[in-house]
Parts: sequence; structure tokens; C-alpha cells
Amino acid sequence: MEFIRKTEKIFEDANFIRQLGVNILKIEKGYCETEIEIKDFHKQQHNFIHAGVIATLADHTAGAAATTIAKPDEEVLTIEFKINFLRPADGEKIRCESRLIREGKKIMVAESDVFSLKGGIEKSVAKAIVTLTAAEF
Amino acid sequence: MEFIRKTEKIFEDANFIRQLGVNILKIEKGYCETEIEIKDFHKQQHNFIHAGVIATLADHTAGAAATTIAKPDEEVLTIEFKINFLRPADGEKIRCESRLIREGKKIMVAESDVFSLKGGIEKSVAKAIVTLTAAEF
Amino acid sequence: MEFIRKTEKIFEDANFIRQLGVNILKIEKGYCETEIEIKDFHKQQHNFIHAGVIATLADHTAGAAATTIAKPDEEVLTIEFKINFLRPADGEKIRCESRLIREGKKIMVAESDVFSLKGGIEKSVAKAIVTLTAAEF
Amino acid sequence: MEFIRKTEKIFEDANFIRQLGVNILKIEKGYCETEIEIKDFHKQQHNFIHAGVIATLADHTAGAAATTIAKPDEEVLTIEFKINFLRPADGEKIRCESRLIREGKKIMVAESDVFSLKGGIEKSVAKAIVTLTAAEF
Repeated sequence: MEFIRKTEKIFEDANFIRQLGVNILKIEKGYCETEIEIKDFHKQQHNFIHAGVIATLADHTAGAAATTIAKPDEEVLTIEFKINFLRPADGEKIRCESRLIREGKKIMVAESDVFSLKGGIEKSVAKAIVTLTAAEF
Repeated sequence: MEFIRKTEKIFEDANFIRQLGVNILKIEKGYCETEIEIKDFHKQQHNFIHAGVIATLADHTAGAAATTIAKPDEEVLTIEFKINFLRPADGEKIRCESRLIREGKKIMVAESDVFSLKGGIEKSVAKAIVTLTAAEF
Repeated sequence: MEFIRKTEKIFEDANFIRQLGVNILKIEKGYCETEIEIKDFHKQQHNFIHAGVIATLADHTAGAAATTIAKPDEEVLTIEFKINFLRPADGEKIRCESRLIREGKKIMVAESDVFSLKGGIEKSVAKAIVTLTAAEF
Repeated sequence: MEFIRKTEKIFEDANFIRQLGVNILKIEKGYCETEIEIKDFHKQQHNFIHAGVIATLADHTAGAAATTIAKPDEEVLTIEFKINFLRPADGEKIRCESRLIREGKKIMVAESDVFSLKGGIEKSVAKAIVTLTAAEF
């Protein structure tokens, strides 16, 4: 399963992703699911999880979903994304599901849904649309 | 200059922002300018600066620009943002300029421009539009 | 069913929406579905449906979904939206489904999915995320 | 001036743009400026100019700015855009300035600023960021 290994590597090889503590939960063709265990360093000034942590998870997991369908010699880059924060996020974990909604050769589009887990209850905290491209490096 | 102190505090009190190493360069009414000295932990899998680092800087600096005009008892929250990555970012530093383009009581909109500095040359690497609201906490 | 009548009225009272030929297919709490029968005047220079027609439908239908939950004395305004065009759109009709994914008092967020119908086959052509607010007029 | 003629044609050949009454004010490499004289049919339910009219102008003018630098055999398509409505728009005219902020071979990004003109006073009413691609047709 070449595409799974290739996708795992974009998590292992990205320092910032390791620093955030991102774990992979699932990799399928056109889909990736991840989570972060929340520590104090993920917080912003009101003790919620920083929007930048959530945005990074939404972006990188979308990149992973796109990597699952990229050609062997191509790497994925984010062109742009938009993210709505649906409620302030706190709790023990955040989890992200990213699925491709456009699988073009040149342009891919993914949808990322981010949830917080607090005391056993999961809530939707953010939704992103991510536009990506694949190119040889 | 009450608003300057209030704005400085959202950098000091946000763990994730301290962790990223964000420095404030300038605070004015409706404007904030920041930078990050790039370390290895800011990188992604191709050794560029991670999109999440750039997005976090664009978002938080926009929040700071909005904080400069918020009422004393109000705090700023990001509703949503959109960011375009204009070229892969590397170099010694990234710098962000955020200015308000809408100063509503309820809804504020900021524009964030992010530049990379490499070998004395500054290049535009990303542009974000950030929608924010202010609320009592 | 007061909210249904109120929502119908934002289609009847908007000249531009009547001009585009928008029909209402369904109105429920937090949801609206619409369609346009495509005429020559909806087209762009390559004979596809103009992105502006699709964006208008995605925006106005989102506004309708938000209107279903607005207070009796409040009207809905679009703060911003983002739309991805997933494939060039042609055919006899376009159809839009908008559902609220955040039902705040101050800020509402809707997701609009637009489909084209051509020769009996429906395809996803665009996806929008729309941020709205409600205010007294 | 081949690029000027090519750019003019995307206004002439687009039915929906003629129907909206879009006039070209200026075409330069990487830049386009347009306006619409407001008629009753451009209005929404509160007698403001419909967000869809503004979004269409922002999108099409961005497409024109990108067309000025497209290769002779290539046509421009919108991948996605995001637009913020900065204040309700009314008045005699709306005017749009679109400039490219990224001039890639594959991916172009334009910034569109829309202004309303009422009683001799021009106000900023919307700002869009538009991502485009060029392809052979």
C-alpha cells in the first residue's frame, strides 16, 4: 500500500506537525483522519485551543487526503484554505476528518471537519475548505 | 496608551504564540505588525515554513489589530479566515502586517500580508482576510 | 408556519433573484433548497453557466436557510462567503442545497452545495461556506 | 495590443456580464477596472445592491486581470473566490479594481476591491480574493 506509506511520511517529515503532536487515525484513498492530544502549549489567551492549531490540523490533514491520490513522483502543496470557527474549542483532544471533494490532476479540493472531545462529548468546532495542487519536487 | 498594553497581553498570554516565538514590531490603532525568527521546528516536509505557522501568524496578528479598537471590557475572537499561499516560504524570518479594513462594532475585517526575509530580500508569501468579532468574556 | 412565509418573501422581494429565475424547492428550519432553469443569459464566454450565477444562488439560498431561524423582527445579511467551483457547469438546471452548520444568535454559518442537471445526470459543481448575521432593519 | 482585445472579448462574449451591464474602464497587464450602472433589477429585498451582483463583478474582473497575462491559446477559469461585504451597497454605480498578486503559470491570484458611488461619494463595499487557472480550450 504505497500511498499509505507516502502519506504517513508527510507527518513524520514535517517538524511542525511532530511538534504539535499530530497522530494519524486513518488513511484511505481520498481521506485522512487525525487527532491532537491537547497540552497547555496549544492554548490561546482565554485558555481555548488556538485557532492556529486547529487551522494547521485542518490544512495538513487535507494535504494528507490529497497525497493519497497524488502520482508517485508528485508532492502536494496548499494553494489556499478558508476556515470557519464554529465554537470556541477546548477539551482533551481535537480530531480532524478530511475528504477530497474534487480529485483533479492539477487542482484538488478537500473539506476538513474538526471536532473537540471534552468529557466524552464530541462537538464540531471548525470547518475548512482547502484547495491544493500536486507538483514534482 | 491602554490599547497597546491590552494588545501586547494577547501575545504574552497565548501559550501557542509564545511557543511559535512571535515578536511584536508595531502596534497602532487598527494595525499590528509581527515577526517570527524561523527555527527548524517551524518547517514542513520539504523544508519550507509550514502553512500552519504562516496562517497562525496571519490570524493572531489580525486579532491584535482588532484588539486595538475593541472596547475595554471586550475580547476579540476569529470568526473565520481565508489565506492564499503565494509562494513557498523559506528564509530567516517571516513578517506580518495586519490592518483593519472594516471597523464595525460587531464585525471587524482585517487584511494580513505575510512576507519572508531571506538573505536580505523580502518576498510576499501569503495574504489572508480575517473576519473577527468582539465580545465580553 | 411564519418562518416559511418570511423566507419565501426574501425571494419575492429581491429583484435580482426574480431576474435570475430562482425557484424555491424546499424550506425547513435551518435548510433551504432552490433551483434555476438555465437560459442563454446565464452563460459566460465558453457557454458554461457563469460563476456569478452559481455564487448568487449559493449566497441567497444560504441567506434563506438563515432566515428560517432569524427572530421575527430580524433580517439576515451576508458577512462573507467563499465558493469553490468543482467543475465547469452546464445543463438544463442548477440546484442548491443550503444548511446551517452554526446557528448562533449573532453569527450563522451555512454550507451551500450546488449541482448541475444535464440529461438526467446530476453533478456537484460548487461548494460554498457562507457567514451571515441577523439584525433589525 | 493583443491582450487588451482578448480581455475585452471575455466581457462581450459573456451573456450574463452583458445582462448585468458591466462596462470596462481600464485594462493593463495584470489589472482590470470595471463598473456597473445600478438599475432596479440589481437590487435585493432591502433595496441594496445584491451581494451576487457584487460577487459577479469581483469575479469577472479578476478573470479579466488574469486574462491579460494568459498565453494566447489559454483561457482563464475561476477555481475559487472569497468575498467580504464591508458595508451594505447602494448608489448610482459600483466600480471594481482587480489586480494580480500572484502571476503563476498554473495558478494566478487576484485581489478585487469593489466601491459604491452615491451622490459623488465613493465607499469601499467589498473585497474579494480570487484564485484562477489558465487552460487550453
